[in-house]
Amino acid sequence: MAEVRLSGQELHGICMGLLRGVGTPEDLAEIVAGGLCDANLAGHDSHGLVRLPMYLRNAIDGKIKPPVRPEVVRRRAATACVSARWGWGQPAARLAAQTAAEIAGELGVGAVVLQDSPHVGRMADYVELIAAEGHLGMTVTNSGPNVAPFGGRDRRLGTDPIAFAIPRAEGAPPIVVDFATSVRAEGKVRVARAAGRSVPPGTLIDVEGRPSVNPEDYYAGGSLLPAEGHKGYALAVAIEALGGVLSGMGPSMIPAYGGGNGMFVMALEVEAFLPVKQYVDHVEAMAKALRSAPTAPGVERVLLPGEPELLSAERRRREGIPIAPATMDELHELAGELGVTLGA
Amino acid sequence: MAEVRLSGQELHGICMGLLRGVGTPEDLAEIVAGGLCDANLAGHDSHGLVRLPMYLRNAIDGKIKPPVRPEVVRRRAATACVSARWGWGQPAARLAAQTAAEIAGELGVGAVVLQDSPHVGRMADYVELIAAEGHLGMTVTNSGPNVAPFGGRDRRLGTDPIAFAIPRAEGAPPIVVDFATSVRAEGKVRVARAAGRSVPPGTLIDVEGRPSVNPEDYYAGGSLLPAEGHKGYALAVAIEALGGVLSGMGPSMIPAYGGGNGMFVMALEVEAFLPVKQYVDHVEAMAKALRSAPTAPGVERVLLPGEPELLSAERRRREGIPIAPATMDELHELAGELGVTLGA
Repeated sequence: MAEVRLSGQELHGICMGLLRGVGTPEDLAEIVAGGLCDANLAGHDSHGLVRLPMYLRNAIDGKIKPPVRPEVVRRRAATACVSARWGWGQPAARLAAQTAAEIAGELGVGAVVLQDSPHVGRMADYVELIAAEGHLGMTVTNSGPNVAPFGGRDRRLGTDPIAFAIPRAEGAPPIVVDFATSVRAEGKVRVARAAGRSVPPGTLIDVEGRPSVNPEDYYAGGSLLPAEGHKGYALAVAIEALGGVLSGMGPSMIPAYGGGNGMFVMALEVEAFLPVKQYVDHVEAMAKALRSAPTAPGVERVLLPGEPELLSAERRRREGIPIAPATMDELHELAGELGVTLGA
Repeated sequence: MAEVRLSGQELHGICMGLLRGVGTPEDLAEIVAGGLCDANLAGHDSHGLVRLPMYLRNAIDGKIKPPVRPEVVRRRAATACVSARWGWGQPAARLAAQTAAEIAGELGVGAVVLQDSPHVGRMADYVELIAAEGHLGMTVTNSGPNVAPFGGRDRRLGTDPIAFAIPRAEGAPPIVVDFATSVRAEGKVRVARAAGRSVPPGTLIDVEGRPSVNPEDYYAGGSLLPAEGHKGYALAVAIEALGGVLSGMGPSMIPAYGGGNGMFVMALEVEAFLPVKQYVDHVEAMAKALRSAPTAPGVERVLLPGEPELLSAERRRREGIPIAPATMDELHELAGELGVTLGA
């Protein structure tokens, strides 16, 4: 079976049909489908349609409760706690980000944790939502252990991403930072394995802690390495504390952690710190100074954080989104089980 | 002149004498001297006594106003703005961190920016102060441009550090994260140059944007590289937004930036998010799981972030702090100018 190319609309339709098939209310299905579709458009296929089979299996097995809605379970001054109640992670993470933005509008800063949540998808989505309100957003999440600590040889930390969104002048998309604290995401190792390729040196170690470029060594009990050694390690530990400990879900290397994404999200109101005009002037001057920087040999132009994703989305809206045959096979199989007609 | 070894007390005495010599009140001098001394003890010589000659020159030139005290210039709900008023950066950064901690005690989270501030020293000091109050601390600062953007070839970003402190059980030192978003700090390149050594590949590029291991290429107009390429770059841009833009000091690559450290500091109250007992249990379980992790070949044991600094301080309290002869020469010269007797 050859690679399939889907339009964003087709991909969205496939997601909606299957999400409805496991009993997801229409509005929640829209949020989950939108998140997967946007990840594929942004070029982060590791967070796109490829995730849906596992999501659906978890819904079928009862680990995710599709009809359940998230709620704000506690609010104290400038902080709040949102629970996904093991319903879908994406609407819950949106509620957490919205709550942080609301509090920031009242008190200048809002800090919110999300608990009892399965996978929330791509972090950029939630800080972008905060930036759309005119605030600066920051979020971190922990996740299942697959990264070795610096100097260690087994999996003790999640890939633990951190994201920021910096709103810009009216009409310009925000500057969006979103990266895993491991050298590479597990999804990239999975892709290399499927293609029979090796991974770049420094990506992983085998079960004995020896450097390896063979993806099989990761799946035989090896570990991903933290980005820039001790720096990525240290940042991941901080993220386990904010996302894992403060949320109550637990850091991912302790027995109390039961899977899922513990999330911390913060919004900062610009006006609490400086006049909006000065803010916009300085951010636009920064964007201009970075985009106009002279380039290193072989580089066409310096991009702002988040620009590669915007360029990918533009291209993929035009050319379609490539989907691996194996993913389509899995989805066809699930559609059969659920008695759903697959849109594409 | 051979390398000098000073005790912490001797080093502190030298700092105090010279800081008094430029008209620094006793209590502010104690804070600046303490910060420099602690950096040397922690093994971060780049932030220790080696900084004092430049500090004193700035004081003599009027760029730093030694008698001036920092103040909280604005407080709104859960946010505040502290100004160093171009007095010493260290007492001002402490006031910013203390203010964040106070607000967190009232409202669950406190977010504070510091403006009109020269160099504030080592970031760890300020988040440790927040952890001593039982809160989680986070801080970022921008600084003069010496790092190239990802794909660029000239200096547009500061080394822009980020730091966290995670309080632990009673009696245990906090977990402390503190790193520059460049591959290496400029101070390490300076040390290699003085010793006639090369720097590891990936540290810097020359003025044409070509990779180099020659420290001279940095001082001939080259740039430091961001840690892990696009990741360190993206994080530095976020830090320029929080530390540079929100503080009003400006991101370091725009003309409005006039030098110094723009700082953002946040404190999070544990009780606002979860019961303190659960917090402590989970943090201690995390610390244990990391410290007991099996090690990669050649590694004795996995350390918590902040542990290398504690081990260095223990060793240097015993063995003394090595100081480069050139630093001592400069300080003797300044002591002569100021009519101060150098303690050691």
